[in-house]
Amino acid sequence: MTDPLAVTVLGSTGAIGRATLEVIRRYPERFRVRALAARQDTETLARQIAEFQPEAVAVVDTAAARRLRDLDAGCEVLDGIAGCSELAARPVHRVVCGMVGAAGLDPLLAALDAGNTIALANKEPMVMAGHLLMRRARDRGVSILPVDSEHSALFQCMTGHPAEHVRRLWLTASGGPFYGRSREELIRVSPAEAFRHPTWRMGIKISVDSATLMNKGLEIIEAMRLFSLPRQRIEVVIHPQSIVHGLVEFTDGNILAHLGVTDMKLPILYALTWPDRADRPVHALDLTAVGGLTFNRPDLDAFPCLGLAVKAADRGGTAPAALNAANEVAVASFCAERIGFLDIPDVVSEALAKSAASEDGDSLEAVLAADREARRIAEETVLKLERKKR
Amino acid sequence: MTDPLAVTVLGSTGAIGRATLEVIRRYPERFRVRALAARQDTETLARQIAEFQPEAVAVVDTAAARRLRDLDAGCEVLDGIAGCSELAARPVHRVVCGMVGAAGLDPLLAALDAGNTIALANKEPMVMAGHLLMRRARDRGVSILPVDSEHSALFQCMTGHPAEHVRRLWLTASGGPFYGRSREELIRVSPAEAFRHPTWRMGIKISVDSATLMNKGLEIIEAMRLFSLPRQRIEVVIHPQSIVHGLVEFTDGNILAHLGVTDMKLPILYALTWPDRADRPVHALDLTAVGGLTFNRPDLDAFPCLGLAVKAADRGGTAPAALNAANEVAVASFCAERIGFLDIPDVVSEALAKSAASEDGDSLEAVLAADREARRIAEETVLKLERKKR
Repeated sequence: MTDPLAVTVLGSTGAIGRATLEVIRRYPERFRVRALAARQDTETLARQIAEFQPEAVAVVDTAAARRLRDLDAGCEVLDGIAGCSELAARPVHRVVCGMVGAAGLDPLLAALDAGNTIALANKEPMVMAGHLLMRRARDRGVSILPVDSEHSALFQCMTGHPAEHVRRLWLTASGGPFYGRSREELIRVSPAEAFRHPTWRMGIKISVDSATLMNKGLEIIEAMRLFSLPRQRIEVVIHPQSIVHGLVEFTDGNILAHLGVTDMKLPILYALTWPDRADRPVHALDLTAVGGLTFNRPDLDAFPCLGLAVKAADRGGTAPAALNAANEVAVASFCAERIGFLDIPDVVSEALAKSAASEDGDSLEAVLAADREARRIAEETVLKLERKKR
Repeated sequence: MTDPLAVTVLGSTGAIGRATLEVIRRYPERFRVRALAARQDTETLARQIAEFQPEAVAVVDTAAARRLRDLDAGCEVLDGIAGCSELAARPVHRVVCGMVGAAGLDPLLAALDAGNTIALANKEPMVMAGHLLMRRARDRGVSILPVDSEHSALFQCMTGHPAEHVRRLWLTASGGPFYGRSREELIRVSPAEAFRHPTWRMGIKISVDSATLMNKGLEIIEAMRLFSLPRQRIEVVIHPQSIVHGLVEFTDGNILAHLGVTDMKLPILYALTWPDRADRPVHALDLTAVGGLTFNRPDLDAFPCLGLAVKAADRGGTAPAALNAANEVAVASFCAERIGFLDIPDVVSEALAKSAASEDGDSLEAVLAADREARRIAEETVLKLERKKR
C-alpha cells in the first residue's frame, strides 16, 4: 500500500468541496487532505478541519478568517484570495478547484504555476482565460482534469482516441427547472424556483446558470478550451433524465457516450484517481430502471443565454470574459431580487454589446480589464432596470 | 496517397459480404478486393467479380464452382472449404469473415495462421473454438477485430482503458421480431415471421437466432473470448431501438456506451480502417429524432435459448461448440418447417444434456468431435419431433 495522496480543496464548504470531502472520507487509504479554502462559512470549515486535519486553511473573507483564528482551529489560517493562492501553490497530488466564479482564477493560476495537477470544477476561469490557462498547463506539463460532469464524460469518451478522429461533441443539458416553459412563463419566476434543479443538487450560482442555460453556454466555451475544438463542433442537446452526460461523434459516425448516476462524486473521484480508477463510490446505474432516455433541441427563444454564450465564443478574444463577468453580476442581482429572471440575458447582452471587444484573450491583463469593464456595465444596467421598476 | 489496402471477403454474397463490398465501393481510394468466397450464389458472385475484379474467388459448393468456371468469370476459381481457406491464407490487409456457422472455422484458422488481420462477423467459430482462436491470434501477433455491432461497440468503448478497469459489459438486444410475446404466443410462429427483424436487415440464420435470442447467447460467449472476461461480467439488456449497441461499466461506476445508426457498414468500416477511421459512410445519427431509448430485462421464459447459452458458457470446455452445432441443426430444421419455433431450444437443450461434456475446449479435435456429436443428437431429436407431429 502506498501513502495516501495529498489533496487541496479550494471551495471546501461549497457543493463541490463537500462532495470532494465525502469522496476523500470514503477512501482514506487513497487520499488525505493537505489544505482547505473557503469563502466565509467558518462554521462548516471548522468542522472540516476537525475531521480532516489539514495542515492549513484559507478563508477569503478576512473578518471570517479572524473569527476562525480566534477559535484556535488547530491549523495555520491564511486569508484573502492571496491566501487561497498560497495554499494552491503548495505541492500536492491534486488541487480541486471548487470555488465559484472569476474569484477562482488567481488560485488556479498559482496551482498551475506550481506544477500541481488540477481537478477543475470552477468553470468560470476557463471561460475567461482558457487559452492562457491551457497554454500555461502545457508549458508546465500539468494536466487539467475536468470535474464538470459533462466534461468528465467527454474526456472519458475521448480517452484512447486520436483528437483528429473527433467530429463533434454533444454536451447534454437537463434543461433545468424551467425546461419546457415558454418565454412568457418565465417572466415572474423567483430565485427560490430557479434554485430547485430537477436532477442535480448544486450550488446557487450554477443552479441559476442551469435555469437560464447560461451554464451550458459556459460549458461550450470550457469544452472548446479543454479539448481544443472550434465552437461549431460542440453541440448542446436537452436530455431531461441527466443519465447521459456527454457524447462524442467520431469521423466515421460511431458515437461514444458517457452514462452515470447523477452524483458529482463520480466525476470528482475520476479526476482524483486518473489515470487510475477506484471502486464505485455510489450505487450502480440500473439501466432497466431509468425509463426512456430522450434528447431534444434547446429552446433558444426562452433561454437566450445559450445564444449569447455562443455569440461570445464566436467573437473570441476577451468576449467570453465579458460574458462571464456580466453573468456573475446578473445572477447575483437576480438572487438579491434586484432584477427578474429574464433580465439576466438582457444584462449580459448589454454588457457584451457595450464592452470594448479586445481580440487579445491570451493576455491576463486584457482578460481582467474586460472582466472589470463588463461588471461595471452590468451594474449600470441592473441599476437602470431597478429604476424602471419603481 | 498510399495504395488501396487489399481485402479478402469470405461470404461475399451474404448480408455481411454485400455490406462489406458496399463499403469498399464507397472508398475506392482506401480499399481494393483481393479475393471473394461464397457458398453457392454464383449469379451474385459473377456480378461481384465483374465489378471488383478480384484475383481469385472460391465457391464452397463444387457444382456451383464448376458453373462459374464455365462462365469464364475472368479470374481463378477455387472450390470447397479448402478453396476458401487457401484464399484466406493469401496475404492481405484484412480477411473479412462473413461466412455463416461452423463452416467458417477452417478459413478463419487459415487466415490467422497466415498472419492476416481478421474482421470477424462469423461468430460461430469464436463460440466453438474461441480459446484456441484467441491463443493462435496472440501467438501470431494477429488482431481479431469484431464486426458484430455489439462487439465493435464494446471494443470501441474499451479502447484506451486498461482491462482491469472494466467491471462489466452489457450487450444490447433489440429483442427481435417477437419481443414482448409470451411463450404461448410463440408456439405457431412461422419462419417468414422470424426472418422479419425489426431493426437490422440480416441473413436468415442470424435473423432466426435473433428471434430466439440465441444470437445474444452466442454473443455472450463471443464477448467472453474476445475480451477475456468471465461470463458473470457480461450482461444482456433489451433495447428495442437498436441505437445503443453496447455499454461498458468501469470499476468506479462510470459507463461508456456506443451509439450509432442501425447499419452494418459502420462496424465493418471500423474493422477495415482500425486503428484509423474514415469519413462517415452513412447519414449521421440525429439524437433528437430517436425518441426515447429504453432498456429492459430479457424474458428468459419465452426465450430459453439465452439461458441455454449461459449454461453452456458456464459448463465451458466443448459445451459451447455443442450448443452452437445443435442450434445450427435446429435453425435449419425450423427454416425447413420440420420443427416449430419453440422446438429450437428443446433440440439444443437435448443435445447439451446428451452430449459428452469434454473439458478440453482448447483442442481442435475435441471441438470438432463435440460439434459432430451434437449435430447427430440434434438430428435425432428433430426426427423424433417430426414423427410425433404426424
